Amino acid sequence: MSNRAVAGPEIEKLIQLLAKLPGLGPRSARRAALHLIKKKDQLLIPLARAMGVAVDSIGVCSTCGTVDTTDPCTICSDPRRDTGTIVVVEDVADLWALERAGALNCRYHVLGGTLSPLDGIGPDDLTITALLERVAAGGIREIVLAVNATVEGQTTAHYITDRLRGLDVSVTRLAHGVPVGGELDYLDEGTLAQAMKARTQF
Amino acid sequence: MSNRAVAGPEIEKLIQLLAKLPGLGPRSARRAALHLIKKKDQLLIPLARAMGVAVDSIGVCSTCGTVDTTDPCTICSDPRRDTGTIVVVEDVADLWALERAGALNCRYHVLGGTLSPLDGIGPDDLTITALLERVAAGGIREIVLAVNATVEGQTTAHYITDRLRGLDVSVTRLAHGVPVGGELDYLDEGTLAQAMKARTQF
Ligand SMILES: [Zn+2]
Ligand SMILES: [Zn+2]
Repeated sequence: MSNRAVAGPEIEKLIQLLAKLPGLGPRSARRAALHLIKKKDQLLIPLARAMGVAVDSIGVCSTCGTVDTTDPCTICSDPRRDTGTIVVVEDVADLWALERAGALNCRYHVLGGTLSPLDGIGPDDLTITALLERVAAGGIREIVLAVNATVEGQTTAHYITDRLRGLDVSVTRLAHGVPVGGELDYLDEGTLAQAMKARTQF
Repeated sequence: MSNRAVAGPEIEKLIQLLAKLPGLGPRSARRAALHLIKKKDQLLIPLARAMGVAVDSIGVCSTCGTVDTTDPCTICSDPRRDTGTIVVVEDVADLWALERAGALNCRYHVLGGTLSPLDGIGPDDLTITALLERVAAGGIREIVLAVNATVEGQTTAHYITDRLRGLDVSVTRLAHGVPVGGELDYLDEGTLAQAMKARTQF
């Protein structure tokens, strides 16, 4: 690899930043940069604009914790959704995966991770208190714990179940069908939809 | 796949545009969008800025045809480069690939494609006239035809060689070593460097 500049530092910077996107390595980042430069009007300008809008307007929903350009988010403010069911997920990516599966017409709660004592992540580092407050406010019939089938995910599910005890709410989890050790976001939509339908009492 | 919006149209738009980058599909584009949103300060803001700079300042070098933020480009205005050798490539990606190989301290000429009568691409659709003018202006000892080892690439090489006949310049091509049917941008750097060193008279 030569150390000489092929183009100005602005292009090198663009390539370096693109290489940080998941799914793109250094070589594919160069291809992506060149593609962007060649498709200036059709792709580079619209993408630069979309990113600018994202910078200015995307935030975290103060109710459920997902990311959106409005607060409350698109999902929390959708009147056609069942307000009695909250699906608890670790991450926004899991929420998106469940929505793609179209499994349930529900609302969500994004934990922001899982309990992990070894990494120093305790209950206060997740949005568990906010979840308890949503349940305590009333109107919630069911909490679906749609966490990953990992040790941390299941530990977190047990912890939340304990904290919900005494509140008048049914706690369910995804049906077995989620592979052990598997992460929701990588599952096909059919499996996710089935696991959601066959969810069991926790 | 559900048709319901998971988030506002701004985020959907960002995902759609990211999915148009080579190397990213619809699913990896969602991951990339989420990664950008989560790494707002470290990645989204710098990348939006780098794209804005690219929109405002990247153009085509009027001498060699590569893309850069200056005209003449970084390579054409580098005083340490041998001005007597012009390496002719089909595409900017090939120029970048040869520079990564560090094979030659040369200047370049980007054709912008290959002759392809079936696709209606003739000599006037490429920068062949500009190449002849560079040679006619004097000071060029050697033209290296670093085109792809495809039928179109070789047809283009023969055409350029014919047009250069009578001008006082040596015309060479990359050594065999480039796989038949192969494209430069996919080759490893060692192969490219060797092919460049062992280039032969055309
Ligand atoms: Zn929300
Ligand atoms: Zn140039």
